Amino acid sequence: MSYNLRLLIDCPDGKGLIAAVSTFMAMHNGNILSAAEYVSSPPSNTFFMRMEIEGDGFGLRREEFDAAFAPLARQHRMSWRTTYTDRPQRMAILVSRYDHCLLDLLWRWNARELAAEIPLVISNHPDLARRVEAYGIPYHHLPVTRDTKQAQEAQVRALLEEHEIDLVVLARYMQILSPEFVGAYPQKVINIHHSFLPAFVGANPYQQAHERGVKIIGATAHYVTAELDAGPIINQDIAHVSHRDRVEDMVRVGREVERRVLSQAVRWHLEDRVLVDAHRTVVFE
Amino acid sequence: MSYNLRLLIDCPDGKGLIAAVSTFMAMHNGNILSAAEYVSSPPSNTFFMRMEIEGDGFGLRREEFDAAFAPLARQHRMSWRTTYTDRPQRMAILVSRYDHCLLDLLWRWNARELAAEIPLVISNHPDLARRVEAYGIPYHHLPVTRDTKQAQEAQVRALLEEHEIDLVVLARYMQILSPEFVGAYPQKVINIHHSFLPAFVGANPYQQAHERGVKIIGATAHYVTAELDAGPIINQDIAHVSHRDRVEDMVRVGREVERRVLSQAVRWHLEDRVLVDAHRTVVFE
Amino acid sequence: MSYNLRLLIDCPDGKGLIAAVSTFMAMHNGNILSAAEYVSSPPSNTFFMRMEIEGDGFGLRREEFDAAFAPLARQHRMSWRTTYTDRPQRMAILVSRYDHCLLDLLWRWNARELAAEIPLVISNHPDLARRVEAYGIPYHHLPVTRDTKQAQEAQVRALLEEHEIDLVVLARYMQILSPEFVGAYPQKVINIHHSFLPAFVGANPYQQAHERGVKIIGATAHYVTAELDAGPIINQDIAHVSHRDRVEDMVRVGREVERRVLSQAVRWHLEDRVLVDAHRTVVFE
Amino acid sequence: MSYNLRLLIDCPDGKGLIAAVSTFMAMHNGNILSAAEYVSSPPSNTFFMRMEIEGDGFGLRREEFDAAFAPLARQHRMSWRTTYTDRPQRMAILVSRYDHCLLDLLWRWNARELAAEIPLVISNHPDLARRVEAYGIPYHHLPVTRDTKQAQEAQVRALLEEHEIDLVVLARYMQILSPEFVGAYPQKVINIHHSFLPAFVGANPYQQAHERGVKIIGATAHYVTAELDAGPIINQDIAHVSHRDRVEDMVRVGREVERRVLSQAVRWHLEDRVLVDAHRTVVFE
Repeated sequence: MSYNLRLLIDCPDGKGLIAAVSTFMAMHNGNILSAAEYVSSPPSNTFFMRMEIEGDGFGLRREEFDAAFAPLARQHRMSWRTTYTDRPQRMAILVSRYDHCLLDLLWRWNARELAAEIPLVISNHPDLARRVEAYGIPYHHLPVTRDTKQAQEAQVRALLEEHEIDLVVLARYMQILSPEFVGAYPQKVINIHHSFLPAFVGANPYQQAHERGVKIIGATAHYVTAELDAGPIINQDIAHVSHRDRVEDMVRVGREVERRVLSQAVRWHLEDRVLVDAHRTVVFE
Repeated sequence: MSYNLRLLIDCPDGKGLIAAVSTFMAMHNGNILSAAEYVSSPPSNTFFMRMEIEGDGFGLRREEFDAAFAPLARQHRMSWRTTYTDRPQRMAILVSRYDHCLLDLLWRWNARELAAEIPLVISNHPDLARRVEAYGIPYHHLPVTRDTKQAQEAQVRALLEEHEIDLVVLARYMQILSPEFVGAYPQKVINIHHSFLPAFVGANPYQQAHERGVKIIGATAHYVTAELDAGPIINQDIAHVSHRDRVEDMVRVGREVERRVLSQAVRWHLEDRVLVDAHRTVVFE
Repeated sequence: MSYNLRLLIDCPDGKGLIAAVSTFMAMHNGNILSAAEYVSSPPSNTFFMRMEIEGDGFGLRREEFDAAFAPLARQHRMSWRTTYTDRPQRMAILVSRYDHCLLDLLWRWNARELAAEIPLVISNHPDLARRVEAYGIPYHHLPVTRDTKQAQEAQVRALLEEHEIDLVVLARYMQILSPEFVGAYPQKVINIHHSFLPAFVGANPYQQAHERGVKIIGATAHYVTAELDAGPIINQDIAHVSHRDRVEDMVRVGREVERRVLSQAVRWHLEDRVLVDAHRTVVFE
Repeated sequence: MSYNLRLLIDCPDGKGLIAAVSTFMAMHNGNILSAAEYVSSPPSNTFFMRMEIEGDGFGLRREEFDAAFAPLARQHRMSWRTTYTDRPQRMAILVSRYDHCLLDLLWRWNARELAAEIPLVISNHPDLARRVEAYGIPYHHLPVTRDTKQAQEAQVRALLEEHEIDLVVLARYMQILSPEFVGAYPQKVINIHHSFLPAFVGANPYQQAHERGVKIIGATAHYVTAELDAGPIINQDIAHVSHRDRVEDMVRVGREVERRVLSQAVRWHLEDRVLVDAHRTVVFE
């Protein structure tokens, strides 16, 4: 079965980094399908790289790669990781009652736009079970009340661990995750916030937007961190609205933006195109 | 010389308002070129209307209109005003050192996209004098320091009064106007803020945007009120940016958005398309 | 049950038309919720109007309206029709194998964004049956070969008649309808063409676009007429592409545009916002 | 004075190309500021590369580079060229009567967005002389009639040669250049066509667009080739229009799109971001 290797690197900037990595690949007969680099602004001056190598004909076997690359990485003080396109990430979707983001993800997954396995969908409501099961995906209904919040989150985490989940997508999941949860999945939880962050942080952003009389509404996909709505932004987009749009019209128009923004962010993440540079993201589109 | 009459109305909503006004026009042989209406949400339920009548063939002379229309207006408790397209508004532009919004306005004015007279441009810097004078428009350099702020503003206001200015456009004017100034020109001062309000209120929005790691930058044209950056929004738009865009790239990209957003807001205002509904605008595009 | 009346008019332009119609409504105690007008350019000078009246409190019963309005219509030589929002149109969707436009329509219908009944979906392939039936909508598989084309179309038409279909949506239906079919449903068949018409008429527009090296791909929703891809355009939009996008990437990006453009066109049609002015459309958004 | 070196390469694809070039740079102590690669689809499989090297600290002097790089280039059958950012291209603008593209280019040039020298502007009309001369740029008025077409073009070419022009920008220049002219400036003449090519080739595209009833108008910047409006496309964008927009409104809206599309294409060209792949372009944004 054919596959590609993806190599993700960040390290202090310096001369010769591209040469070092690409020569390493050439030495092992690797065909570089794509390469992208970026150096962040001073004072950090971090070098970021994403390289995709054709597995076919590459001289290093999967189990050999790490040992072969480690000395080079050490020499340049690289943080690095590899992924293989024939081992798709395992993605869980958490959802409440709104179905638009969920269904868009499922449709794209079914259309093979998203390279992932989806072992389960978890919801605190039963409403969307049939929709999910129609795609052959198990639906776990874990209701939550103020009193059972901790226990329910423990159940969620147990399921994620059991299913060896690599990525958690909050597709309009209306519960705030605990810092412990977030800390256990660093840069592995993607949320869609239904506003153009940092405007309208918190609850009811469309209501807030309507009251302020904005002419544009937006959506923001971001990694979840302990601070609410403040994690690194992956993707944002907007739609125009007018005075004629009531809150419910903004909600309708916003659905379109939310699902597009989230699905694209998830696709980029699954293709290892998103690296985190402190509280910002580098997206190698 | 041919002209159109524009009638702008707001009043409590009720049945028969369109019929009353359009019948009044028909009675006087007026040809309605365009009509637009809007009723704001409860609890205010205000009816807004903009109607444009062909002057040619209209049975009411300009000086007769007010007396003829007043009883109808009184009956429906209308606030109303009329404008005539052969009497363009008199617009002053206030600017500091950035020229992009200014030049775009002047270019559009010259291309007859903006139906206004521009008797003067005022700046607290001398830099842009030649550019403005090339269009045959007087340039007033009124420098300002912390100590002379009040005196300079008085000079500005004297010039605006002398030239009978109807609309003041702040085309990246880097001075905050006093509440007295703003109060003297209600809904007659348009500012361009170089962010997607309400995100990044205040100084250095591109710097703020860069630090937050946003993927979109925006610009907002709004009426100036006593509260900084909080006036009714007329127009907003955005441009996409990436991690590669440094603050100076955002500034460059932002110039494009700012000038487009401001020019369009000014055009709508000059065509009497913008009505104010509390702290929001109704824009009859 | 509460409802609104919509009145759609076109007639030769003239003074007093808005007054006549709005006075008629006021006379019968009708509350005008929205009104939009447009006069087409010379030489046609046709007046188009769409008016929405609150059913609640309106003094004319449904069965009385026509007789009451007819004399006024005759006097102004109006073509006109009424619709009632509690009698949604009956919409059939024709589809082949691509599911993105179909599923988007069904999702919006389910989310109550589309005011229609969908008594059936017809396809020349069996593939999408389960997806459609999950929404509780019957799926008719009517296969077609070169030899059975006429017979299959007759079957389709029989089904449409049997189900009293008002609107036929071709959601990537890969069969060309006969002129007889099209003639039987004037301005009642909406097609999505996967290019920015009039560029790339006919088959394989993404292949054509890729070969030409365009930087934008588009989609066009239009009424179907006897001439292929030449009917009145209702809606168009685009997405940016780059040299990196192969034909299959354009197809993926295009799906997003196609479904959005088609769904919006269908929504406008169902809300009686689209009037036809010769080979162009008037869209009262 | 500090500068960067840009290296542009195309050659048959193969393994080790990035390694070869980046190692060459590392060997000479070159700091790679950015690198971008692309391999075109089969059957051509051409490798394209753009690399930008910091001049400061680079071990090869300008006059040494070619001799040092040639053997490597020969080995990989590379077509290649270098540019230096302290030697900006020399750009001539040809214009007729419309000023919007011209003024936008001049404003950006003045704002240092365009890294070029502009030794002259040439026009077949006298109208825009003052505007151009205000920027301190000589304006050459070379009128043309049907009879003097050949002679005038010869004058234009003589001026371009005299001023050692690298890039000719047709900023709404309403004359068709002869094949000889075009052949003398391969991929060095950029035109703005005021439609979304390949729709509305030829004259009066806005008139054509209005007649067809499109809902979007576009503009296309492309390299000029012997075949009218068929050269490689560099940049395209669009704006939405409605039934209310008459031809003159489309012209107004279109001006905005035209100037933006052309200026961006010119900027990319001047930054050596555009490579030509047969009749398509590779744009390394």
